[in-house]
Amino acid sequence: MDVYEKSLLCHEKWAGKWETKSRAKVENAEDLSLAYTPGVAKPCLEIKEDKSAAYKYTLKNNLVAVISDGSAVLGLGNIGGLAGLPVMEGKCILFKEFAGVDAIPLVLDTQDPDDIVNTVKNVAIGFGGINLEDISAPRCFEVESRLKEILDIPVFHDDQHGTAIVVLAGVINSLKLVGKKPEEIKCVINGMGAAGTSICRLLMTYGIKNMVCCDRDGILNETNAKLPHHKKLVEETGTQNLHGTLSDALKGADLFVGVSVAGCVTQEMVKTMNRDAIIFAMANPSPEIMPDVAKQAGARVVGTGRSDFPNQINNVLAFPGVFRGALDAKAKQITEGMKLAAANAIANLVSDELLCDDKVIPNPFDKRVAAAVAKAVADEAVKENMVR
Amino acid sequence: MDVYEKSLLCHEKWAGKWETKSRAKVENAEDLSLAYTPGVAKPCLEIKEDKSAAYKYTLKNNLVAVISDGSAVLGLGNIGGLAGLPVMEGKCILFKEFAGVDAIPLVLDTQDPDDIVNTVKNVAIGFGGINLEDISAPRCFEVESRLKEILDIPVFHDDQHGTAIVVLAGVINSLKLVGKKPEEIKCVINGMGAAGTSICRLLMTYGIKNMVCCDRDGILNETNAKLPHHKKLVEETGTQNLHGTLSDALKGADLFVGVSVAGCVTQEMVKTMNRDAIIFAMANPSPEIMPDVAKQAGARVVGTGRSDFPNQINNVLAFPGVFRGALDAKAKQITEGMKLAAANAIANLVSDELLCDDKVIPNPFDKRVAAAVAKAVADEAVKENMVR
Repeated sequence: MDVYEKSLLCHEKWAGKWETKSRAKVENAEDLSLAYTPGVAKPCLEIKEDKSAAYKYTLKNNLVAVISDGSAVLGLGNIGGLAGLPVMEGKCILFKEFAGVDAIPLVLDTQDPDDIVNTVKNVAIGFGGINLEDISAPRCFEVESRLKEILDIPVFHDDQHGTAIVVLAGVINSLKLVGKKPEEIKCVINGMGAAGTSICRLLMTYGIKNMVCCDRDGILNETNAKLPHHKKLVEETGTQNLHGTLSDALKGADLFVGVSVAGCVTQEMVKTMNRDAIIFAMANPSPEIMPDVAKQAGARVVGTGRSDFPNQINNVLAFPGVFRGALDAKAKQITEGMKLAAANAIANLVSDELLCDDKVIPNPFDKRVAAAVAKAVADEAVKENMVR
Repeated sequence: MDVYEKSLLCHEKWAGKWETKSRAKVENAEDLSLAYTPGVAKPCLEIKEDKSAAYKYTLKNNLVAVISDGSAVLGLGNIGGLAGLPVMEGKCILFKEFAGVDAIPLVLDTQDPDDIVNTVKNVAIGFGGINLEDISAPRCFEVESRLKEILDIPVFHDDQHGTAIVVLAGVINSLKLVGKKPEEIKCVINGMGAAGTSICRLLMTYGIKNMVCCDRDGILNETNAKLPHHKKLVEETGTQNLHGTLSDALKGADLFVGVSVAGCVTQEMVKTMNRDAIIFAMANPSPEIMPDVAKQAGARVVGTGRSDFPNQINNVLAFPGVFRGALDAKAKQITEGMKLAAANAIANLVSDELLCDDKVIPNPFDKRVAAAVAKAVADEAVKENMVR
C-alpha cells in the first residue's frame, strides 16, 4: 500500500485530525455558574470596556485561523475549499504539535477576492492571527495586503512567506559554507507565483542585489511582464531590459531557486553556473533537477522539498514558530524584519561543526526550531515596536 | 467574592476555555507524510470527487460553529461580537462536555443581516452544523430562515429553539401532573422576542390551541402588532381582535410562560388564573414572579431559569443532544418534529415516581439527557427522511 492509500485509511480512522478540549470542568451547577451563566457576564463586560481584555480572558491570545479558498491546494490546483479541508486540518495539528498554537481550519465557499476579504474581516476578531493558505496567485497578494491593512492582528500567507523564510535560512547557511556574500552573488528564481514572489523580496531584503526572476516566458522584463505583481518585481529587480531564457539567466549564477516545474533545469545549465553553485529545486513532487544529477554537473549544495533527499525546505520549520512568536509578543503584524529574524534563527540551529553541503537546514523534527524562531520573531516585534 | 469576581479570576486562569487537540501524531517524517503532505492529497481528491466524503475524512462530521454578532448577549444587550466571546466559548465547551460535539466560537464584526448571512454561508462548508447564538430579534428570524434556505446543514438559533424545547418538556410534564390536555388549556406568553416566538410556535405544534401572546403593549393584536414576526404571530394565534393588558390575558389562563422582565406578574394576576396554574417565569436574573410568591397566590407548578429554584429551564438540556442527534443522523435540518421529539425525550426522563410539582424537568447534569435527546432527534430525522 502506498502513502496515498495508507493516508486515506488513516483519515477515515481519524474522521477529523483534530478535536476540541475543554479547559474548564462543568460537572455541577457551580462550575456552570463560573464557566457560563451568570458568572461569564463579568469577562464579557470587561472586554466590552476594553477590547484588549479579550487576550486575557479568551483564547484570542493563542488562536489562529487557517483560511483557504482551495484555489491552489498542494500540487492539485483549484479543488475548492471543502476538498482542501484535509490539508487545512493537517496544518492546524502542526501548529499545535510544533508550537502549542491552537488553530482551526476555515475553508471558504467563495473564491472572489472582495468576498474573501470581507468574510475574513467579519470573523477575524475572535482570533489572534490569520494564516492564509493555498490561495492562488495573483489573488493571494491582493487578499493578503488588503487584510493586513484592515486587521490589527498578524496576517500571513504561508505559501509565500513560510517558504521564503526557510529558503532564506538555507541560503544563509549555503553562502556561509561556500564563502560568498549576498551582495556579490547572482540569484535566479524560476516560477514567480506566490512563493517565488515572496522569496525574491526576502532574499533582496537579506542583501542579494543581482536578482533575476524567470517565469514561463523566461526572464521577466518590461516586455513580457503582464501581471501587476510581475511588473512590480521587474521594477524591484531592475531587469526591465534583460531578455533571455532560464538557460540564459543561469549563466554565471551562484544561486538557483526553483518553485516551478519538474525537470526544467538541465545538467548543461548547471555547468554554466558559477563555481560552488547552490540549488534549491522545490517543484513538487519532482524537483526542477534531481539532486544527484545536479551534483554530477558541479552543483555544491542542493536542496529540495522532499524528505527523502538532504536539505529539505519544509515550511513546518517556520510557520509554527513565527505565529508562536507573534502571539507571545502580541504583534500587530509580521514584518519583513520578523521574517529575516526567523530565517536567521533557523539557520543558526545548524552548528558550524554540522554545517556541510548536505546539511544547510535543520531537520523538520528538530525540537529546538519552533522555540528559537518564536523567540527571534518576538524579540524583533518588540524591537520594531510592532506590539500592542 | 461573588460569582462574577470568581468567574473573572477563572477566565484569567483559563485564558481561553477550550483548546485544540490533535488526533494524529506527527513525530516523524512518516507521520507527516500520512497526516500532511504528500498523503493528504488522497482524501482531498476523494472529497473533490464526492463532497459527502468530507463527512468521512474530516471533522465536518462532528463540528459545529457557534456564531454570534453579540447583539443580544445574556441580559447584557448589544455588547458586540468580541465581548460575547466568553459566552460563545462557554457554549462550545458545553457542546463537548455534554454531548461530545466539537464546537468552535465564531464571533462576528458585523451586525448587518445580509453581511451575517453571506459570511456564514462562506464559512459553513467546513462545519456539520451552525448554532446561532445571542442575535437580537427580529434580525435573528431573517438570518436563520435565510441560512436554512441556503445551507444543507442544520442551522439552529438556540435562544429561540433550545429554550422552546426545554419549556415544552416542562409543559408536557406539568400538564400530565395536573391532568389537563394541551388542546383544552389557555396559554399566555409574555415577551415576544426570539425565545417567546419559538416557544409560541412549538407549543402550538404540540397541540395548544388557545394561545395569547403579549408584549410591552399587552396582548398582541392587529392594532398593536408592528413587527413582521408579531403580525405573523397574531395571525397564527388568531388574536387579531383580542385587546387588553397582560393582566387581562392571564384571566382564566392555565399556563403562563414569561421571557420578559422581572416582577411583571403579581399575586393578583396569578389568583385570576385557572386552578392548578402552571408558571414558567424565565426573566433573568430575576423572574417575572418569584416562585414562593406565585405559589402563595395559588400556582401549582413554577419553573424559572435559575439553578437555585426547582424546575430550572436550562438550554443545556436541549442543544447538546439536539446537535448530537442531528450530526449522528447526518440531518439536513432541524425540523419542528425533531424539536418535539427532543422535548418528549427530556420530559420522559422524569419518571412517574419522581414527577411532582417541584420536579417537572430533569436536572441539567442528568447524564442521560443528551443521549436520550440525541436518539429521539436522530430517529425523527430518519422518520422524516431529513437525512443526507
